[in-house]
Amino acid sequence: MSKRIIGSTPKQDGYRMPAEFEAQDQVFMIWPERSDNWRNGGKPAQEAFSNVAAAINQFTPVTMLVSRAQYQNARYQLPEEIRVLEMSNNDSWVRDCGPTFIINDKGEIRANDWAFNAWGGLVDGLYFPWDQDDLVAQKVCELERVDSYRTSDFVLEGGSFHVDGEGTVLTTEMCLLSEGRNPHMSRVGIEDMLKSHLNVEKVLWLGDGIDPDETNGHVDDIACFVAPGEAACIYTEDTNSPFYEAAQDAYHRLSEMTDAKGRQLKIHKLCCPIKNVTIKGDFKIDSVEGTLPREDGDICIASYMNFLITNGGVIVPQYGDENDALALRQIQEMFPDKEIVGVNTVEIVYGGGNIHCITQQQPSA
Amino acid sequence: MSKRIIGSTPKQDGYRMPAEFEAQDQVFMIWPERSDNWRNGGKPAQEAFSNVAAAINQFTPVTMLVSRAQYQNARYQLPEEIRVLEMSNNDSWVRDCGPTFIINDKGEIRANDWAFNAWGGLVDGLYFPWDQDDLVAQKVCELERVDSYRTSDFVLEGGSFHVDGEGTVLTTEMCLLSEGRNPHMSRVGIEDMLKSHLNVEKVLWLGDGIDPDETNGHVDDIACFVAPGEAACIYTEDTNSPFYEAAQDAYHRLSEMTDAKGRQLKIHKLCCPIKNVTIKGDFKIDSVEGTLPREDGDICIASYMNFLITNGGVIVPQYGDENDALALRQIQEMFPDKEIVGVNTVEIVYGGGNIHCITQQQPSA
Repeated sequence: MSKRIIGSTPKQDGYRMPAEFEAQDQVFMIWPERSDNWRNGGKPAQEAFSNVAAAINQFTPVTMLVSRAQYQNARYQLPEEIRVLEMSNNDSWVRDCGPTFIINDKGEIRANDWAFNAWGGLVDGLYFPWDQDDLVAQKVCELERVDSYRTSDFVLEGGSFHVDGEGTVLTTEMCLLSEGRNPHMSRVGIEDMLKSHLNVEKVLWLGDGIDPDETNGHVDDIACFVAPGEAACIYTEDTNSPFYEAAQDAYHRLSEMTDAKGRQLKIHKLCCPIKNVTIKGDFKIDSVEGTLPREDGDICIASYMNFLITNGGVIVPQYGDENDALALRQIQEMFPDKEIVGVNTVEIVYGGGNIHCITQQQPSA
Repeated sequence: MSKRIIGSTPKQDGYRMPAEFEAQDQVFMIWPERSDNWRNGGKPAQEAFSNVAAAINQFTPVTMLVSRAQYQNARYQLPEEIRVLEMSNNDSWVRDCGPTFIINDKGEIRANDWAFNAWGGLVDGLYFPWDQDDLVAQKVCELERVDSYRTSDFVLEGGSFHVDGEGTVLTTEMCLLSEGRNPHMSRVGIEDMLKSHLNVEKVLWLGDGIDPDETNGHVDDIACFVAPGEAACIYTEDTNSPFYEAAQDAYHRLSEMTDAKGRQLKIHKLCCPIKNVTIKGDFKIDSVEGTLPREDGDICIASYMNFLITNGGVIVPQYGDENDALALRQIQEMFPDKEIVGVNTVEIVYGGGNIHCITQQQPSA
């Protein structure tokens, strides 16, 4: 039902990726279960995912994708209003393995189905195999009867870029120029792919992200667009913060940037947690060769930036940190007309990501 | 997303099962793959299922449900217009394990989700386990956002009954009174379940079906409604036919029946194939303890009655038999306004069923 479009690009066909703050029809998530990534058999993470799903569902219908093994449990754990569908997966990061939807001016919707290699493939990917994750985008397109552009020779994850919906894309060099993704392509070649498949004119490059080991520095932990001409960026003056250098660099680069429309970007600062969230030695995480080990004291990538904007709401990570309330206030100022909903996502950040990483919005066509 | 409705019945809530000749939104199928049931690794059956799907898709959109293992192959083999979705299953008889959809006068749709036990459970069922089949109806309801009535303590298969959409259900004693289904219930208790869940007033009982071993005599191999007040019935005067006795009995019972509206039924005769379709000794079928063995010379249940009525079309089994053309003509006379499409389904009948058994329509609400 979902056609593979061959021989043209979204730009040629008049499709663009809308910004996250534009209208959405639904949000996809994938149920967590890998016991070599989620502690205690995934049970604490499943509870946290359920809370995130319920929060989103106040604003936008949620479809939860779940493996055969966990189907009945997920259906039972989740509120009845959440749609629960079977779909195989290798882990639960639908932002990165799911489709990137695009729309045109006639009210039609299509999608980009990027090649996915678990954040670096055999170079520095996080697990093997990733075959089922790489099918998620296609299966979602079949589900929703959406035609797609498959980029078999171009690896990209949804969490590695943000668009403003008006011709600008924001990304990081650390990720998009990494050895494990598209080493055969030049920076200009990569820019061309972003331009043709997201239908943008200008690529804004940040340097490093705060998550070099897992995602090679996805932008969605450090910055995003909050409105046309306005971006948010994590900010800390605490030189002891593990995120200090990347945050400072991102903030100063962003402050000097203009977007595709020629606007000087207005930058909103977003605080970081005061205390580190760390892996505890007593976590029960299965040992499996080839997956990233979790060790006592490892610092998790706890950023408030990894929120989801979804219609009238913004769903924001909370860590039980002193700065939780400040983060909510700062985000409320960025989105004066939206309801800001905090959800404790410590259990999700233990697994390597957060609310933005585990969600993928389907925009309204 | 799909609610389980507790404490009432479709009849109480104003929902009825529409006749198959009423309008349909889509048809579900399940991709065949069991190598202990389908010969040669299921490859010939997959081709036949593809042909059936393509024929239906001329009239009604088809959604093909397929296991994780066969997903990519099914997507490749099927025409692009067919929607292909992942769903675990134990075999491919969605008529029997899928939902029975019901509609009300306000344009709303719900479904019955009957308990499924592989045609007889531990008494005389065809395989073990059947846990994934028993989840198919619920998963389809989730998929289409349809609320359902689950009858955990009442076993029923969609192929064991037909309705006229005007208060009448047609079934067989051989199946519904079998030991492997609802031995705890009386005939009257079973009638009450049919009445309350299909919203009918009258149950018409035939005796034996022609398929005692596999389905315990499903009605969909011997008779169906073709219009209000009109039924079709297989008919043969060949006393050597394995179907002779059941066909004669069904024909004579039907000829004396009146429906819920008090109409004497008009009965259309439908021929049987002249030659038996039989299992050949050189079929490569995996040996697995507990499944029904296939032996050289076993007679297959090759009935022309196992067709699907779907909007402007009727999709009819063909066997390369001398009577193929006659069957098409007789069915054309039953449905003068519909297009009759024959599909060779010898490979499907080898596996124990036919077009009606492998399809489940979702009526238009």
